[in-house]
Amino acid sequence: MNFGFITYILGWILNFQSGFLFLTFVLSLFYGEKSGYALLVSAAISFLIGIICTWRKPKHKSFYAKDGFVAVALGWIVVSISGALPFVISGEIPSIFDAMFETISGYTTTGATILTNVEAMSKCLLFWRSFTHWIGGMGVLVFVMCILPLAGGNNMHLMRAESPGPSVGKLVPRVHSTAVILYGIYTALTVIEVIFLLAGGMSMFDAITTSFGTAGTGGFGVRNDSIAGYSTYIQNVVGVFMVLFGVNFSIYFLALVRKPKEILHSDELKSYIGIIIASTLIIGFNIRGYFPTLGKAIQQAFFQVGSIMTTTGFSTTDFNKWPSLSKGILVALMFVGACAGSTGGGIKVSRVVMAFKNIKNEIASFVHPKSIHTLRMEGKIVKNDVVRSVNTYLVLYFLVFAVSVLLISIENFSLETSFTSVAATLNNIGPGLDLVGPMDNFAKFNPFSKCVFMFDMLAGRLELIPMIILFSPWVWKRK
Amino acid sequence: MNFGFITYILGWILNFQSGFLFLTFVLSLFYGEKSGYALLVSAAISFLIGIICTWRKPKHKSFYAKDGFVAVALGWIVVSISGALPFVISGEIPSIFDAMFETISGYTTTGATILTNVEAMSKCLLFWRSFTHWIGGMGVLVFVMCILPLAGGNNMHLMRAESPGPSVGKLVPRVHSTAVILYGIYTALTVIEVIFLLAGGMSMFDAITTSFGTAGTGGFGVRNDSIAGYSTYIQNVVGVFMVLFGVNFSIYFLALVRKPKEILHSDELKSYIGIIIASTLIIGFNIRGYFPTLGKAIQQAFFQVGSIMTTTGFSTTDFNKWPSLSKGILVALMFVGACAGSTGGGIKVSRVVMAFKNIKNEIASFVHPKSIHTLRMEGKIVKNDVVRSVNTYLVLYFLVFAVSVLLISIENFSLETSFTSVAATLNNIGPGLDLVGPMDNFAKFNPFSKCVFMFDMLAGRLELIPMIILFSPWVWKRK
Repeated sequence: MNFGFITYILGWILNFQSGFLFLTFVLSLFYGEKSGYALLVSAAISFLIGIICTWRKPKHKSFYAKDGFVAVALGWIVVSISGALPFVISGEIPSIFDAMFETISGYTTTGATILTNVEAMSKCLLFWRSFTHWIGGMGVLVFVMCILPLAGGNNMHLMRAESPGPSVGKLVPRVHSTAVILYGIYTALTVIEVIFLLAGGMSMFDAITTSFGTAGTGGFGVRNDSIAGYSTYIQNVVGVFMVLFGVNFSIYFLALVRKPKEILHSDELKSYIGIIIASTLIIGFNIRGYFPTLGKAIQQAFFQVGSIMTTTGFSTTDFNKWPSLSKGILVALMFVGACAGSTGGGIKVSRVVMAFKNIKNEIASFVHPKSIHTLRMEGKIVKNDVVRSVNTYLVLYFLVFAVSVLLISIENFSLETSFTSVAATLNNIGPGLDLVGPMDNFAKFNPFSKCVFMFDMLAGRLELIPMIILFSPWVWKRK
Repeated sequence: MNFGFITYILGWILNFQSGFLFLTFVLSLFYGEKSGYALLVSAAISFLIGIICTWRKPKHKSFYAKDGFVAVALGWIVVSISGALPFVISGEIPSIFDAMFETISGYTTTGATILTNVEAMSKCLLFWRSFTHWIGGMGVLVFVMCILPLAGGNNMHLMRAESPGPSVGKLVPRVHSTAVILYGIYTALTVIEVIFLLAGGMSMFDAITTSFGTAGTGGFGVRNDSIAGYSTYIQNVVGVFMVLFGVNFSIYFLALVRKPKEILHSDELKSYIGIIIASTLIIGFNIRGYFPTLGKAIQQAFFQVGSIMTTTGFSTTDFNKWPSLSKGILVALMFVGACAGSTGGGIKVSRVVMAFKNIKNEIASFVHPKSIHTLRMEGKIVKNDVVRSVNTYLVLYFLVFAVSVLLISIENFSLETSFTSVAATLNNIGPGLDLVGPMDNFAKFNPFSKCVFMFDMLAGRLELIPMIILFSPWVWKRK
């Protein structure tokens, strides 16, 4: 393990983090809030530690896959600790556990909150809270790599460990350029959403924080009733943008370089849109009795389907009260998640599609044992080891899920609460059902459960492997 | 597809079935119950159809894997229809849906019931109901193969489709002899249990039916309170025998041929026993407040762990009222299930162990991409395609599970009910939680849901593939 180099990377992450904190401090001056000092102090602490870690360039440049995973896992933990400081120092979230929970929930774009009254927070800390969504959505390290040629030729190890999806596609040959293009698309889409929201009469503060929550598919709102209090126009804008941010960003890149044919042939995109339409219609019909018109029911169904499937977690209504079929579909969508290469969480549509195709092949090979069945995805043949690792990933996923549910159920809440609270954190969604429903929060859990959730949120965002490696002593022992 | 041969096999199944029905009719004479005529009529109908189907030996002997799967799936459906006849003809279960549900639940050794008052049934039909467990436990076709050299050299295709577990081990080179050995061990263990139960003061009728329920890991009781009303001695005997019938039968064969070393090195057996001990202790401590002494709590925990893990489904107490952790562990055990090659259902311990080992290898290969990791099970190297099919199986399993839960949730019972009712049927257990708890039954579901459960019970017992193939039109089209 190249600890020198890992420390160096962590240092740079802290340096960038202090920049984000300082930016938010500047905003606090505008609002004249005294909580701003907490941001300044936090920025200073982060910068101090960061500068010490990056003072000297590490001698050894050898950097392997293992180092990449450990660097990313530690990087996300470090950034969460430093991001939690303003909440603790300002006293607005006095418990370090709760502040860590809230910050990890922010960076991992989960959006689960321990706050019982969001509106009581100062504006600058609410902004910081939503800002963590935006930073975490595309990835802290991807951002650092936009600016710095950090690990030289080994950037790919970092990129792979942080990016969501079964296989990391570089859009262009250079990792650095890929990172810049991704953040470019990300920023442009965010700005467009802000403009649309402002056009609907939203205040600048609400428009920016809501856009941060949408772009990162996070779900932190700045009002106690999430998005429910805004107009139907604003709900629809947020709904459409949630779906847009759940699309694989390489689709937008293909659109930019004018390759519409490849977009139309994307299995993942077709499945993603198909699932959204089908779920919206089924739920819409299922809940029509809850709303004055079928149109309104379908509009609400679309918002909630988009919110859950993209793992954003905004809500416009208490879907906890919906019939079992609708709740069941939403729970299923929690696991499917958004497209690979988007800012969304969950298992990812591409893995689900590949698993389906693989099952079809396997059954065909039972029926015709001698014929050869290849798996094609986005028009290309998928290699056997990718299929294997997708399957292993799914099994590991359900394992982490099951163990987490058991650990949470020690608290003796209902099984529905234990089950959906883990589903909501591991898939980076936010709200679940029953005691963690959209009108509820995570304040009721004890510190042990909160630690399990923190692990799950990070494990979900980083796609399991980095966190599992970090917490596997036997991995460390082996030479 | 060789329909001639499949019809011939189905015919022989019906012939044997009429024999079983006739045996039960003879018993009804002993009790002097008039419901006995229903058994005689059913036996006659089965024999009539059976004799027509087996009148002429089929010309074509070519018999492929596909034919094996279809023959087994259809065989189980045919046997369930014929087994449901006595209930309908006698009028004790007038609805054909309910009678089919009860019979499929019997043959698949699920033990889920639609009866609200078991004790109101006639003795001979209660005996028939428990008898289906015993026949289904080891397999209808395996029984037929004990007597007849049915498909000649292609017996293996039938055996593979009906036997539980990721890979079918023939104990001895000939399939016929393997079937005889399996049924021999099965019968001997059943007789030993009957003797132990009689020694505890049970009536002959109760001892035999309870032993049928234990041997097949079925769970149909002959009393409304399942096993709760019997003495602690009897509960412990049933508990121990449930665990014994959940062991891979090849272990008993190894014991018979005196190879204790191989038994001690069985990964599956060690994991099976380990899981039972760990779960019993955790649940025992968790529920100690519900019982006068810790010892009693552990005894009850052992019974319930054994019952659920072996997918038997007997109960001695209403575990629906236990704390969430205990209920959560029981739900997890529902999925793990018993050992491969036992009469139990679920995913099977060996698949779970293999999935674990594969995950460990996959993580190790992330850390050391260049080293080679082989998977060993029971001391032997497991081939890659076995690992692949285990993983695919698990993914398919969760898919069937999720779709079933959504279909059941149309009825709008609680999510806990929908979730555990599917878990209880797909894993061939019987009772679930909430509205399908151990003190409850499946009478409340509508015919559509009952069809879903019937499919799940058969799919679970036959390990998915035969039922999936039977219901996949695209499989039929391909040449």
